[in-house]
Amino acid sequence: MSKKFVYSFGSGKAEGKAKMKSLLGGKGANLAEMTNLGLPVPPGFTITTEACDMFYRNGKKWPSGLKEQVLAGVKKLEKDMGASFGDPKNPLLVSVRSGAAVSMPGMMDTVLNLGINPVVVAGLIKKSGNERFAWDSFRRFIQMFGDVVMEVEHEAFEHELQSVKDKYGAKQDTDLDAAMLKEVVERYESVFKKYTSKKFPENPIEQLEYSINAVFNSWNNDRAIKYRQINDIKGLLGTAVNVQAMVFGNMGNTSGTGVAFTRDPSTGENRFYGEYLMNAQGEDVVAGIRTPNPIETLQKVNKGAYKQLLDIRKKLEHHYKDMQDIEFTIQEGKLYMLQTRSGKRTAASAVRVAADMVKEKLITEKEAVLRIDPAQLDQLLHPMFDPKAEKETKVISKGLPASPGAASGQVVFSADDAEEWAKKGLNVILCRIETSPEDIGGMNVARGILTSRGGMTSHAAVVARGMGKCCVAGAGEIRIDYKKKEISAGAVKVKEGDWISLNGSTGNVYLGKIATAEPSLAGNFAKIMQWSDKYRTIGVRTNADTPHDTEVAVKFGAEGIGLCRTEHMFFEGNRIIAFREMILADDVEGRKKALEKLLPIQRKDFEGIFKALKGYPCTIRLLDPPLHEFLPHDEAGQKEMSEVMKVSVEKIKDKVDSLHEFNPMLGHRGCRLGLIYPEISDMQVRAIIEAALNVKAKGIKVKPEIMIPLVGNYKELKIARESAEKEIKDIFKERKTKVEYKIGTMIEVPRAAVTADEVARYADFFSFGTNDLTQMGCGFSRDDAGKFLPDYVAMGIYEYDPFQVLDTDGVGKLVEIAVKLGRKINKNIKLGICGEHGGEPKSIEFCYKTGLSYVSCSPYRVPIARLAAAQAALRNSKK
Amino acid sequence: MSKKFVYSFGSGKAEGKAKMKSLLGGKGANLAEMTNLGLPVPPGFTITTEACDMFYRNGKKWPSGLKEQVLAGVKKLEKDMGASFGDPKNPLLVSVRSGAAVSMPGMMDTVLNLGINPVVVAGLIKKSGNERFAWDSFRRFIQMFGDVVMEVEHEAFEHELQSVKDKYGAKQDTDLDAAMLKEVVERYESVFKKYTSKKFPENPIEQLEYSINAVFNSWNNDRAIKYRQINDIKGLLGTAVNVQAMVFGNMGNTSGTGVAFTRDPSTGENRFYGEYLMNAQGEDVVAGIRTPNPIETLQKVNKGAYKQLLDIRKKLEHHYKDMQDIEFTIQEGKLYMLQTRSGKRTAASAVRVAADMVKEKLITEKEAVLRIDPAQLDQLLHPMFDPKAEKETKVISKGLPASPGAASGQVVFSADDAEEWAKKGLNVILCRIETSPEDIGGMNVARGILTSRGGMTSHAAVVARGMGKCCVAGAGEIRIDYKKKEISAGAVKVKEGDWISLNGSTGNVYLGKIATAEPSLAGNFAKIMQWSDKYRTIGVRTNADTPHDTEVAVKFGAEGIGLCRTEHMFFEGNRIIAFREMILADDVEGRKKALEKLLPIQRKDFEGIFKALKGYPCTIRLLDPPLHEFLPHDEAGQKEMSEVMKVSVEKIKDKVDSLHEFNPMLGHRGCRLGLIYPEISDMQVRAIIEAALNVKAKGIKVKPEIMIPLVGNYKELKIARESAEKEIKDIFKERKTKVEYKIGTMIEVPRAAVTADEVARYADFFSFGTNDLTQMGCGFSRDDAGKFLPDYVAMGIYEYDPFQVLDTDGVGKLVEIAVKLGRKINKNIKLGICGEHGGEPKSIEFCYKTGLSYVSCSPYRVPIARLAAAQAALRNSKK
Repeated sequence: MSKKFVYSFGSGKAEGKAKMKSLLGGKGANLAEMTNLGLPVPPGFTITTEACDMFYRNGKKWPSGLKEQVLAGVKKLEKDMGASFGDPKNPLLVSVRSGAAVSMPGMMDTVLNLGINPVVVAGLIKKSGNERFAWDSFRRFIQMFGDVVMEVEHEAFEHELQSVKDKYGAKQDTDLDAAMLKEVVERYESVFKKYTSKKFPENPIEQLEYSINAVFNSWNNDRAIKYRQINDIKGLLGTAVNVQAMVFGNMGNTSGTGVAFTRDPSTGENRFYGEYLMNAQGEDVVAGIRTPNPIETLQKVNKGAYKQLLDIRKKLEHHYKDMQDIEFTIQEGKLYMLQTRSGKRTAASAVRVAADMVKEKLITEKEAVLRIDPAQLDQLLHPMFDPKAEKETKVISKGLPASPGAASGQVVFSADDAEEWAKKGLNVILCRIETSPEDIGGMNVARGILTSRGGMTSHAAVVARGMGKCCVAGAGEIRIDYKKKEISAGAVKVKEGDWISLNGSTGNVYLGKIATAEPSLAGNFAKIMQWSDKYRTIGVRTNADTPHDTEVAVKFGAEGIGLCRTEHMFFEGNRIIAFREMILADDVEGRKKALEKLLPIQRKDFEGIFKALKGYPCTIRLLDPPLHEFLPHDEAGQKEMSEVMKVSVEKIKDKVDSLHEFNPMLGHRGCRLGLIYPEISDMQVRAIIEAALNVKAKGIKVKPEIMIPLVGNYKELKIARESAEKEIKDIFKERKTKVEYKIGTMIEVPRAAVTADEVARYADFFSFGTNDLTQMGCGFSRDDAGKFLPDYVAMGIYEYDPFQVLDTDGVGKLVEIAVKLGRKINKNIKLGICGEHGGEPKSIEFCYKTGLSYVSCSPYRVPIARLAAAQAALRNSKK
Repeated sequence: MSKKFVYSFGSGKAEGKAKMKSLLGGKGANLAEMTNLGLPVPPGFTITTEACDMFYRNGKKWPSGLKEQVLAGVKKLEKDMGASFGDPKNPLLVSVRSGAAVSMPGMMDTVLNLGINPVVVAGLIKKSGNERFAWDSFRRFIQMFGDVVMEVEHEAFEHELQSVKDKYGAKQDTDLDAAMLKEVVERYESVFKKYTSKKFPENPIEQLEYSINAVFNSWNNDRAIKYRQINDIKGLLGTAVNVQAMVFGNMGNTSGTGVAFTRDPSTGENRFYGEYLMNAQGEDVVAGIRTPNPIETLQKVNKGAYKQLLDIRKKLEHHYKDMQDIEFTIQEGKLYMLQTRSGKRTAASAVRVAADMVKEKLITEKEAVLRIDPAQLDQLLHPMFDPKAEKETKVISKGLPASPGAASGQVVFSADDAEEWAKKGLNVILCRIETSPEDIGGMNVARGILTSRGGMTSHAAVVARGMGKCCVAGAGEIRIDYKKKEISAGAVKVKEGDWISLNGSTGNVYLGKIATAEPSLAGNFAKIMQWSDKYRTIGVRTNADTPHDTEVAVKFGAEGIGLCRTEHMFFEGNRIIAFREMILADDVEGRKKALEKLLPIQRKDFEGIFKALKGYPCTIRLLDPPLHEFLPHDEAGQKEMSEVMKVSVEKIKDKVDSLHEFNPMLGHRGCRLGLIYPEISDMQVRAIIEAALNVKAKGIKVKPEIMIPLVGNYKELKIARESAEKEIKDIFKERKTKVEYKIGTMIEVPRAAVTADEVARYADFFSFGTNDLTQMGCGFSRDDAGKFLPDYVAMGIYEYDPFQVLDTDGVGKLVEIAVKLGRKINKNIKLGICGEHGGEPKSIEFCYKTGLSYVSCSPYRVPIARLAAAQAALRNSKK
């Protein structure tokens, strides 16, 4: 017997359920669930994702048994509906919809009104007494089937529709009457024939087979692939296909269709939130072609259906214990549910919904913590417009506040341009009349999105919210001219490249750039963070080099500094001159003289950082980059330096030449500097310890941790440590006082990882420098790998870019080896990570599993890390 | 009680023995051994190397107890000799000599005739009746003590000696009579006072203490440190000090002194070989100031002593079972032994002595194999002068054949110049009147050494043989003028920078450069190699890229190619044009077109190599270096390329720019090329397999092994392997025949090492690319590490340069991990090494211990590797 490929639902009973998402897709599983819950779901059946998978493995042919099961499903459906395919008396029409295990809105294909043909149209007219509806359904089907299934150019149909509208002076599609729509159908049939060289297939089963294939195929269309890449959707079998009896929102003015969220997806407010259109089918709402009505107004149109929706809203939230995104249709006054799924939401909404649901006892604190996508949290952390600056800036339009946040950028008018400009490092605002799935790439790189058409559930709005990207949608007063590359907002013209600013929380569009202000982190956000801290077991530190960054990070909840890069301190102002003096010096004495100038400056920096830390520990890395990074490599820079420092250009050039390296990544840097020029380390150690003593003298706790970078061989650390301890002993003697300190190393050279037992003898702590460990471990130069790494990820050689998500299978193995060896020798060794992976949720989960003591990340990622660390603990303690 | 620091010997009984070398030094241990053997050794005592070690740990102060033990040793010596320090009637004179566990000839200090003072001189005259001898001994002592112990300038004494000689018209030192020598003594005393501001110390115990300190201190003088570095002498505690009753070779014409080898140290011939001088002390022979007589002539001078020496020669060889290097003194006709040690020898001599001793049943085959230093073998493998070319070249002088081999180079006249010129990559011949320990650095970098003074045991000769460096010594007809930087050889003048050639086996000096010929590998060498092959358990392959190199390597005993680098094939002649065409191509088609031109060329290369291998396996690495290495980076080169290829300079420049990498070592190379441009790998795979089929068709066995380079992730290998196998399948189908092949990878990326279990699923073999594994594992760019690596080795962070000797503790750990993981998955996986470490004896021992199947090295190192592999097996199976 062949596998079960078809799961039916209808008449209050379904073969599937919500938990079968990976087999039935989200839509199919939830249709089954809703059916079992007793909600009014039109009957139908779901073809499994396994069938799709086997379709691909089978050279795009149906697996054996599928056809029979589909025909059986149709039979059952005909029975449930008391209607038959092609039956002029009582014709069955169905929708064919994609639906993967993870929602990919608008990315795959849908065909509505399937089963229609001239004979059926006649029957429909008879049965419904609504000639216009029948012809409208037919023309919709030809257009959709032609476009989606047969790949006829969309424009070709649109052109004919417009011609007929022009011919009869119709403004809206609804202005066309039955006869006119019949004319549209005739023209559509010619278009179909012209483009496909085939007659339009009138057999409903043939239509169905074509459409199922189209849905299967749409799983791997370009935009679906791109969407999965961007949204990191992996490991799915394919899409399921839902074949469901049609209900018609376009059956006249007592019919309609709508989408709604059980809570506000932007703010999280606990209110019913949605839109609907009467006499319309689903795509009319989603595509944003007509601007829909707010859901509240439905009670005036159909009080019963509205009340029923409110009941369903409550029922679904209690059942799913999460905010739901639903689709419904009203056919001649009667409500049908077409979809429910977990609603996409902004970070603000996610936080509020989770916090509120805990208050409402729908979910636990732990569930609340697990409910929020850490990556999305970013939205709440980035600065908003400075209110004063915003007030003073000219508003040129107001649209819908489709996705919160604030963005300033230069205007571009196409997704391609957006990608191109962004590649050059420019901030762009993508301006479109409306967006479509083809625009995904451009939306992803834009700072914000502005559309002149479409509602809160339009494509632009939904996608932008998912991306956590600021979006103002349906700004109807502006006109966007693609050809002229120009926005007209009243008298104001905005050209390509001009700056505008968007406030995605108010819908305001501003001319020019606006200064930004820090986000507020109180209320529900604080509550989620508090719960995260309660359930996480590893520490979160920050990578910060200045007192200001330190303050921001501590405000964000950092429990110390995991990486303070001292070299950044040498670039500011006049410091670079002293530093260059040091580099140019011919001997130790000359270097020492220059270093003496730097000592008080570094000491002061450290004092500021220690104060900002309020007693939290601070890991300070000694000088790391190769010296040539501090010298100008171009002639103009060298000339300038020569003038400032009164040193000949030749001397500078000679120094630059002598410091040149073929592979600076593997060159004279890290502890190799401090070992060859111990006076540099001595100065830095002195600055750290003197600063610590000075701050301690003011009654503030200090915990300095000196980190020796780029150790590959324990002897490097041994020598560096001895040398630092000698200097520290001298300072303690001079000052007649002491302070506790730690000395440790970065584990970033593979050799150090595999000999970590030896290294651990001389280290109070290890901090995994996973950036360099990735470079050396994988043999990738971060500056060069762009030439092949994207291809590598596309080929699946690496699941993710290993510089973004820690390569746990390889680089992670080195980390595991080092942890095991290090702990074997030094049971109490502190273990942390300070590479950029320290703020990336998947990498944080790895750190948790490997038993690290803390992660360290950039200040703005601290809350993300706190949440991700809590999730890692909760997810893994459950198991 | 304090430690035992003093071991006495004398009167047929010694506290020490030969096995106590590390405590007593080589000289001390062997003096004890010879005493116990009943040989005529003047009594004395040895201060241990531990005492020297504690002297240094103690801030250069004697450890407690040493003084008492030295005084007790002196007492015992006085008793043995029936003479006392400072006793005018019967004065005890002693020598104070350094002696570490490993011989460091001439590097440390020696003081002779200690105990002398004006009172003792008077007593000596009375006792010996030889006034001249007494004054000569005194003047020698003042000079030596002043020079060695008090650091008085050598020249200051020489100047006075010369003045007195000039005053009395004396030509030789021996022309000075007692009165004249007394005058020398007086002058020396003034010199001593002038330079040291001290009166010459007359108390023998004070003299002794000073001298022992001087010997201790000489352990760490510059030349001793340098010698230990060059000769890789590590782990010693310090030097022992031998205080021994003086015997006088300068007591008139029945006295003398000499050095000898029990066999010929140059050729290994089983004949007594040495030199002596009558009426002289040891340093006169060694320093080469007077030219000594061949040992055979001693039988005419003192038949008894000569016969006694022949007996001792036999006794020592039978006792030590090795060729010995001895020192003796004859005092008034009576023979005394002052030293025996294992004799330094040339590689040729080492091979012959070992082979002969097996024949003589003195040692076993295994012992013979262990007796030869693999590194030294190099001497026998490098080309000698082409005999015809040599015959046709003008001989300008003939000296002693002091160290065999042949060398051509440019003349320099100082060690410093030699080092400087060599740094620039020039081949130099160091020409000196005589060499001294200060010249060690220059001798080390020179291709050959020429001296105008000194014998076969002169400093130059001994050191050069140790280094395996060609040396012609004592070429008396030439005059070397340091000031003019000129050699006069009769009418011929050779200036600095002129080319000369040395034949170290004949002593001939030639004007100009001479072409070279291959060495012969028959006879004893073949025997040693045969025994090596008998006892070694791992294979030896070669790294070769051409049929010629392959032939050479097979002749040297290579059992296959471990690394054939295909990229070298692309540089020759017109090939580079096709290759550059490939690089410049805009698309796959363009690349394929260019690759088609390369296919037949590569195929032919492989055919040649397969033929030369005669059935041995051949590991061929697919293209490895980044593409930019194949393009000219300078403007002139780009212009030339533009003209040849009829492509604009801009296009070439653009390509070079687009291919530029910040860290090419970690860039787009290795399998990353083949994965992004699969057509390159396809072409190479096709060339390999088609060549294999063609050669197989001629009845020659072929074993191609395709090696995918720079794999870091098993998926790279998986994809590359699948792609290669597809191509191979196609070829087999086209040709309707097959050939066996293997596909494997280099393990050179640390990530591959720690995930070797996964990689092993797709690999028939691993070849450890330890060069790159060192670069990535340690984070060292080979091209840049020169800036700090020598300091690192000096600081002891790495014991050796990890690019020369495998860093077994770190990089070796990665190898061990990979071996363990790889074997776990694939029990039969072939494991080899193809980094340059494959020809380095210590690294070979590591490979043996780690269980690799073979090592691969450059053709000229194959015999070294065979020997080293045998030694590794013998050494480790013994344990």
